[in-house]
Amino acid sequence: MEKTPGTFDITAQDSGTRGRTGRLTLQNAEIETPVFMPVGTQATVKTMTSAEVQELGFDLILGNTYHLLLRPGMETIQELGGLRKFMSWPGAILTDSGGYQVFSLANNVKIDHDGVEFQSHLDGDRLKLTPELATDMQLAMDSDIVMAFDECVRYPVDRTYAKEATERSFYWTERSFERFHVNRRNQNLFFGIVQGACDMELRRWSAEHVAGLECDGYAVGGLSVGEPMDLGMDVLAGTVPLLPEGSPRYLMGVGKLRDIYRAVCQGVDMFDCVLPTRQGRHGHVVTHEGELNLKNARFRTDASPIDERCRCRTCRDYSRAYLHHLIRAGEMTGMRLATHHNLWTYARFMESLREAIRENRLESFGSQLPPESGNEDPSTSSEDSN
Amino acid sequence: MEKTPGTFDITAQDSGTRGRTGRLTLQNAEIETPVFMPVGTQATVKTMTSAEVQELGFDLILGNTYHLLLRPGMETIQELGGLRKFMSWPGAILTDSGGYQVFSLANNVKIDHDGVEFQSHLDGDRLKLTPELATDMQLAMDSDIVMAFDECVRYPVDRTYAKEATERSFYWTERSFERFHVNRRNQNLFFGIVQGACDMELRRWSAEHVAGLECDGYAVGGLSVGEPMDLGMDVLAGTVPLLPEGSPRYLMGVGKLRDIYRAVCQGVDMFDCVLPTRQGRHGHVVTHEGELNLKNARFRTDASPIDERCRCRTCRDYSRAYLHHLIRAGEMTGMRLATHHNLWTYARFMESLREAIRENRLESFGSQLPPESGNEDPSTSSEDSN
Repeated sequence: MEKTPGTFDITAQDSGTRGRTGRLTLQNAEIETPVFMPVGTQATVKTMTSAEVQELGFDLILGNTYHLLLRPGMETIQELGGLRKFMSWPGAILTDSGGYQVFSLANNVKIDHDGVEFQSHLDGDRLKLTPELATDMQLAMDSDIVMAFDECVRYPVDRTYAKEATERSFYWTERSFERFHVNRRNQNLFFGIVQGACDMELRRWSAEHVAGLECDGYAVGGLSVGEPMDLGMDVLAGTVPLLPEGSPRYLMGVGKLRDIYRAVCQGVDMFDCVLPTRQGRHGHVVTHEGELNLKNARFRTDASPIDERCRCRTCRDYSRAYLHHLIRAGEMTGMRLATHHNLWTYARFMESLREAIRENRLESFGSQLPPESGNEDPSTSSEDSN
Repeated sequence: MEKTPGTFDITAQDSGTRGRTGRLTLQNAEIETPVFMPVGTQATVKTMTSAEVQELGFDLILGNTYHLLLRPGMETIQELGGLRKFMSWPGAILTDSGGYQVFSLANNVKIDHDGVEFQSHLDGDRLKLTPELATDMQLAMDSDIVMAFDECVRYPVDRTYAKEATERSFYWTERSFERFHVNRRNQNLFFGIVQGACDMELRRWSAEHVAGLECDGYAVGGLSVGEPMDLGMDVLAGTVPLLPEGSPRYLMGVGKLRDIYRAVCQGVDMFDCVLPTRQGRHGHVVTHEGELNLKNARFRTDASPIDERCRCRTCRDYSRAYLHHLIRAGEMTGMRLATHHNLWTYARFMESLREAIRENRLESFGSQLPPESGNEDPSTSSEDSN
């Protein structure tokens, strides 16, 4: 029997943690959760083809409304049949609302009750984004999951501004929600976003109000924005129980394997992050022994694969020494191969997490995580630079 | 029965032209000629994996000694088992001698009888290349085909210098040849190079002397270096008959489809050029209707594939509009997809040429060539820039 898009079946509940597996039905795919979404900022997961991303085991990717609005523009994507058709992506798409990028990338940003005015970081064009426009754009792309337009404030922030932004975000979420229901043509879903900085009172207020809208899913935004990760995890642990148990929960922009694991233990179902792709392009790779920087001189003549235990094509065919050379020489082939390895590792990691939940051993799974290593690259929600 | 590397069987002779098909046995592949070699300057055909290049139908690629000498260096490649193993390339490799790049890329180049002193374009290191060193490096990479070290002069050049350079090139070729026979360990082949600028007297002198060495094959160098293409083709037409009929003939650095066709009609068997890969990265693609610049605004909403008649994966999955967007946005995925298309087209073009020769219709094949279009990009022999 075909399930209606929006159906979210919880298929297993770990007994030692809040971790759970689920199956989320979208108009273009059935998604097993917990799921990681690679980021396809400019209508491509950087360096990869759509077919490859699917072969790696992903059926849901994230598209960035802000970037696609600036280039190629919504009319173009709509004229070409939506984002999936435009980029020949056979799976499903979640689009962000563009809000995060406006605040992090655009110039001369002016916020008022109505929305955000800004200058394009590409050509300086003056533009305005409102909840209505952000929603319409996502519907024009025929996104499987449309995200509410919100304001994401960086850490630290004073409480007065945090409260103002949290209230504005909810007001914008309401308007996004209304617009979505008026203008949707297909079986798109709508996710609300809980904000509130690192203030549990604001988080509670936001969660209660957003949950009151009866969205198809709920995102926790405004984390991984500069705060210490332990503080972020505390906020998350306090926020998740405020969200409807039976709906998918999405933690935006968090993407280190260890943090994904901790959030899954809190009951989070969905993740996105540029980390595996952006890091890959810089020669940073994830392995069972921790992260490696392939540019490091010690890999110059290392004939072993990135990860002896990995079965991806990069590890099957190529040595660390070869990747070291390619990345140092600025060769795209090297960026591709490292990106491929990282995405493969993320896909397998999410499979392992789901398996651990089904087998009631998510808690002990934590002891198998690769060792933590310092990492200079903050995770953010779009692939802007190289 | 296994054939000895170096065996070159002429398998068909076109009756209306000097075009012929052949089979060249190398230590790592059997090559059907006429053949086009993609250029893998820095141990990668830019944007492609080794497996993809072979899947496209190529069994022989070119490596640039100059670039590989500078990075990762010969010791590294040798320690890792040679260039093929280093880059996991299952086919065969022809390496140039580095001479061309020294003259076109390096700084403060000083030529004397012994060799060339220069500064690395990467880090300014002062280095010296001699026929002996260039040969040793190619043997260290375990190249299937080792090229003589020569001096390639650009057009125009005065006759005094052209004569001096032609004689020096032959002297260096002799030294390369001797070194090759002393130091080779495997079944590597050695190709001599005929120089002589656009002066038929010099070309004749060079061809006679180089042919006297009884090399495994003969290259025509010093064309496609700035001279009008018709003049180059006249020089080629005069030079090829001076080379041993039964040996493979290689025209260096010529790579427009129309020029390849004309050279094949003159009896040339082998080609290399950065054109399909470099052009691809800039969004220039070859089609049955001629060349297209995908950056052009008219492709912004063009839902058709690059070439309706092409069966490559890029044309199967993606539209001109998508590639237009990706190339404009500087996305590597776009460069990859365009490179893939161009290389596929070159591989199929060479197949068609071989078929036309076998069916005795090479002359009429000329009328089926795509229309010529102005092209700003000169062909050169290594992939240096983006």
